[in-house]
Amino acid sequence: MTFATTILTLYPEMFPGPLGASLAGRALGEGKWSCAAVQIRDFATDKHRSVDDTPAGGGAGMVLRADVVAAAIDAHADQRPLLAMTPRGKPLTQAKVRALAAGPGVTILCGRFEGFDERLFEGREIEEVSIGDYILSGGEMGALVLLDACIRLLPGVMGAASSGVDESFETGLLEYPHYTRPAIWEGRTIPEVLRSGDHARIDAWRHAQAETDTRLRRPDLWERHQGARVQSPSGARRRTED
Amino acid sequence: MTFATTILTLYPEMFPGPLGASLAGRALGEGKWSCAAVQIRDFATDKHRSVDDTPAGGGAGMVLRADVVAAAIDAHADQRPLLAMTPRGKPLTQAKVRALAAGPGVTILCGRFEGFDERLFEGREIEEVSIGDYILSGGEMGALVLLDACIRLLPGVMGAASSGVDESFETGLLEYPHYTRPAIWEGRTIPEVLRSGDHARIDAWRHAQAETDTRLRRPDLWERHQGARVQSPSGARRRTED
Repeated sequence: MTFATTILTLYPEMFPGPLGASLAGRALGEGKWSCAAVQIRDFATDKHRSVDDTPAGGGAGMVLRADVVAAAIDAHADQRPLLAMTPRGKPLTQAKVRALAAGPGVTILCGRFEGFDERLFEGREIEEVSIGDYILSGGEMGALVLLDACIRLLPGVMGAASSGVDESFETGLLEYPHYTRPAIWEGRTIPEVLRSGDHARIDAWRHAQAETDTRLRRPDLWERHQGARVQSPSGARRRTED
Repeated sequence: MTFATTILTLYPEMFPGPLGASLAGRALGEGKWSCAAVQIRDFATDKHRSVDDTPAGGGAGMVLRADVVAAAIDAHADQRPLLAMTPRGKPLTQAKVRALAAGPGVTILCGRFEGFDERLFEGREIEEVSIGDYILSGGEMGALVLLDACIRLLPGVMGAASSGVDESFETGLLEYPHYTRPAIWEGRTIPEVLRSGDHARIDAWRHAQAETDTRLRRPDLWERHQGARVQSPSGARRRTED
């Protein structure tokens, strides 16, 4: 089955862009996903093909018109989830990525300038998603991030390269540190336990490292992880969210 | 002055990629920033040009070798900050973006596979940065996001289009909602206050909306915002963070 993606944007030339290379690019060539970039401007109705106008109440920048964007949505929306990449959206999580990747695909709306006329979110079923607490020049970069995160999880894309389940966030913890050859680099050795061949000890060390690193680097994640464990009667470490 | 960016990657063809379009693309053409993508593989020393090897202690995937990556770093690192995009890194904030954009540029190291041999971070001065709590196929997409966030803040890039100071996160709050013409869309009107011409009332409404939306959509941000206000004797709303 093809994971079908449609991106509504003022810069369709940005897609597939970096997703045309590497794993995602090969998967695109193999039909594991598809990428249709739609020019929002094609749905403008005036002779200047305007998509935006000045903010009601004054202020800097321009706001994307609800009528023009809604026309683009109405021409392309179907049973797939419809997301808009906006800084006001719900923070993207790995659980959300997994849920999207398990579905038929996604339609993504990319804003520019000061964003969309808010009535758009009242008049259409759109889920606002944010990739992080920083400001980008538009939603396109967020869409590329979201798609990359989904595509690598599609069946057959990562292949045997990685199961994906040990990674950061999948267990609610950061991933443990990795080492590889050479055995000694600039006088630094690989931790002895990893050279022991004792898989139970290695697993225990890795889990302890993941816990320590999460606690020190990301006290916010650690707190949520602890909360999730307390709430779970079985003591299971895997959290479900969203 | 040119904001000089160097990206160490296994996929140099991904750069400037989407940053070659729109605002960032124009700024690149005008010399406001520069983009040098360096192939890490060129620093491999064996005949197969290997950059990675199996994880010490076993497990799926491959780990990037410290010696090869360090050689790439040593050939290109200078006085600019050296960042690595990794899920174990410090979450990117708008304050960090502002600090980077005010500097001479940045060198960004992009991982692939299971990541880097951890000894690399002991042997070199590298700041690990994460763009969010989800897993990407590599650091390249994170580098594009970080660069996009920085470039739009460079002098002359946004022009008069936006001051940038009213936006989400710049005040520790989400941005207020926007509206524009048409005045009525599918029976929905623009809030009356925005049509009043009373700028004090408009400012008050927008601030109240920003507070309400932050409290409802992002209780985590709201809590930090409240904490920052309590800590500040002047009651200033702007927070500094790193």
